[in-house]
Amino acid sequence: MSDPSERAPFFYIPIETAFMTHAATVLAMHSEMHTLFPNRPERWNWLDTEGDVENTIATRGADVDVLLSASIEKLDKSTLAKFPNLKMVASVSAGFSNIDLDECRSRGIAVTNAPGMNSGDVADLAVALMTSLLLRIPQTQDYIMTDQWVGAAPPLRHSIRNMPVGIVGLGSIGKEVLARLTPFGVDVRWWGPRPKPEIETPYVASLEDLADQCRGLVICCRPDDTTRHLINDRILDRLGADGVLVNVSRGSVVDEDALIEALKSNRIGGAALDVFDPEPTNSARWADVPNVILTPHQGGATFETLFSQAQLAQSNVENFIDGKPLLSSVL
Amino acid sequence: MSDPSERAPFFYIPIETAFMTHAATVLAMHSEMHTLFPNRPERWNWLDTEGDVENTIATRGADVDVLLSASIEKLDKSTLAKFPNLKMVASVSAGFSNIDLDECRSRGIAVTNAPGMNSGDVADLAVALMTSLLLRIPQTQDYIMTDQWVGAAPPLRHSIRNMPVGIVGLGSIGKEVLARLTPFGVDVRWWGPRPKPEIETPYVASLEDLADQCRGLVICCRPDDTTRHLINDRILDRLGADGVLVNVSRGSVVDEDALIEALKSNRIGGAALDVFDPEPTNSARWADVPNVILTPHQGGATFETLFSQAQLAQSNVENFIDGKPLLSSVL
Repeated sequence: MSDPSERAPFFYIPIETAFMTHAATVLAMHSEMHTLFPNRPERWNWLDTEGDVENTIATRGADVDVLLSASIEKLDKSTLAKFPNLKMVASVSAGFSNIDLDECRSRGIAVTNAPGMNSGDVADLAVALMTSLLLRIPQTQDYIMTDQWVGAAPPLRHSIRNMPVGIVGLGSIGKEVLARLTPFGVDVRWWGPRPKPEIETPYVASLEDLADQCRGLVICCRPDDTTRHLINDRILDRLGADGVLVNVSRGSVVDEDALIEALKSNRIGGAALDVFDPEPTNSARWADVPNVILTPHQGGATFETLFSQAQLAQSNVENFIDGKPLLSSVL
Repeated sequence: MSDPSERAPFFYIPIETAFMTHAATVLAMHSEMHTLFPNRPERWNWLDTEGDVENTIATRGADVDVLLSASIEKLDKSTLAKFPNLKMVASVSAGFSNIDLDECRSRGIAVTNAPGMNSGDVADLAVALMTSLLLRIPQTQDYIMTDQWVGAAPPLRHSIRNMPVGIVGLGSIGKEVLARLTPFGVDVRWWGPRPKPEIETPYVASLEDLADQCRGLVICCRPDDTTRHLINDRILDRLGADGVLVNVSRGSVVDEDALIEALKSNRIGGAALDVFDPEPTNSARWADVPNVILTPHQGGATFETLFSQAQLAQSNVENFIDGKPLLSSVL
């Protein structure tokens, strides 16, 4: 996931002969994508799904050269088999855990993503959620709405200044979270699979220790096999009854059943989730769960980010058609 | 409201003879204050209220030399008349709009407050609330809990980066709000009764213009006669259907009836209130009001701030007894 501006000078090799001599046939896995990419018949042609992507795959799958994808549909081996002539998957998302990369590699299918563009947007939400939880906003709103505020003075709270808050995964999102949390004066620490000597924020040697030390954890690590249920019963118990959890990564990183149980039994103090396992989540699952803030995968889902990501995906498709180097290739 | 560390070198005049030759009799208007101030019989003696301040005032009012007060009780002329020998009101709060200063002046009663100590705490809450509103967290939680999230992808939102946000009153709290909002990349502007040439953040010439320009307003001006119902129907209409309001000043600054009406008719997009008119507010008043976040006057109400304020109030009382200059005098 190199920065394209870094890669281009080193890898750009002009190629006179285009990789594909005919206009590419492109299938958008989401019809909304048609508003983001202009049709350019001399370069590519959209497959018109008439609103039914599944049927189009069944009847025209063999025609598809390029799939425009997002991170929300599973492109596993059996799905990819429906596209026997597929040459490229261009994703508008940063994540690619939905794509069977081994299968793409063995079939010679190029895969591009659109990394790092929504980090600020995701961090905005993460910090709004973390400060809201540290300030116990769900609890205090409930205090008013259940008529507990009867005296002139409400109960005192603690300042969030100097509260230890842990960032799990200090990648591009984690760094943006750090920048936004800093002026609140909270005491930020972090953990990730590798220490980063260039980062001044204290690194804690294990997630267990981070959970022990911190009042809040912000989960912004990469979702993959190594981070599935990274946040489990054991970590939640270390976070403790005063501790709060924010997840803006993927639902799979948190053992959601364990979290719900910990919230219901007040073994942790609160949670704010933008991502769920599965999505969409069911309201009934949360009806009796106290001290939660729930948002429907809003972190990176901004018009502004998607326009940038679509622009990059389009450039990747154009470069692929022209036989030029890809700007953000996964494979 | 000078900073005590700035004033002391200029105004400190050692006085050999103490102003009061006997130990002062001190009445705490809130029994919780007894945990913050040690009794020091050689300097002052608490009046033991046995949990009934009203009765103590009725029976022992004439004995009181010093009142320890907060901003929540009204010290008007008739209340002050119950203390015919009162010499000092020491408030643990920054605000003093609850005290009849004319009456204190005419009776020669000294008044001290504890300014500027909770600005960071108030700003923490203000920014958590503003970012939550800009991110439409009440609406999106409702979206989940009313089973509107049925497709895999939720609707896109707008990035808050570059959204114009206005601060109403750039005093000590407003400046702390500015510091916390800056890394979110929102486009901060401000209005107050006087431009401040030393501030780089754009000054907007009128509150009307600020409301026209901004997606969100954070109210952190001083509550006094000039700011009563500063936020009224007219300003709310200029803020508009996409606009959101945060109030961490005092309830009186906002015309609460007008605000509720504007929220119910979706003429504004959301509001987050930490302060109400009157307090405590009634849950029934908010039951049918959409897109609100409500907290029970939690802004400055932290243990950490109160300990600092109590320390300053105690120093003021000691200095007053010793005839030394007051560290933060209002009168």
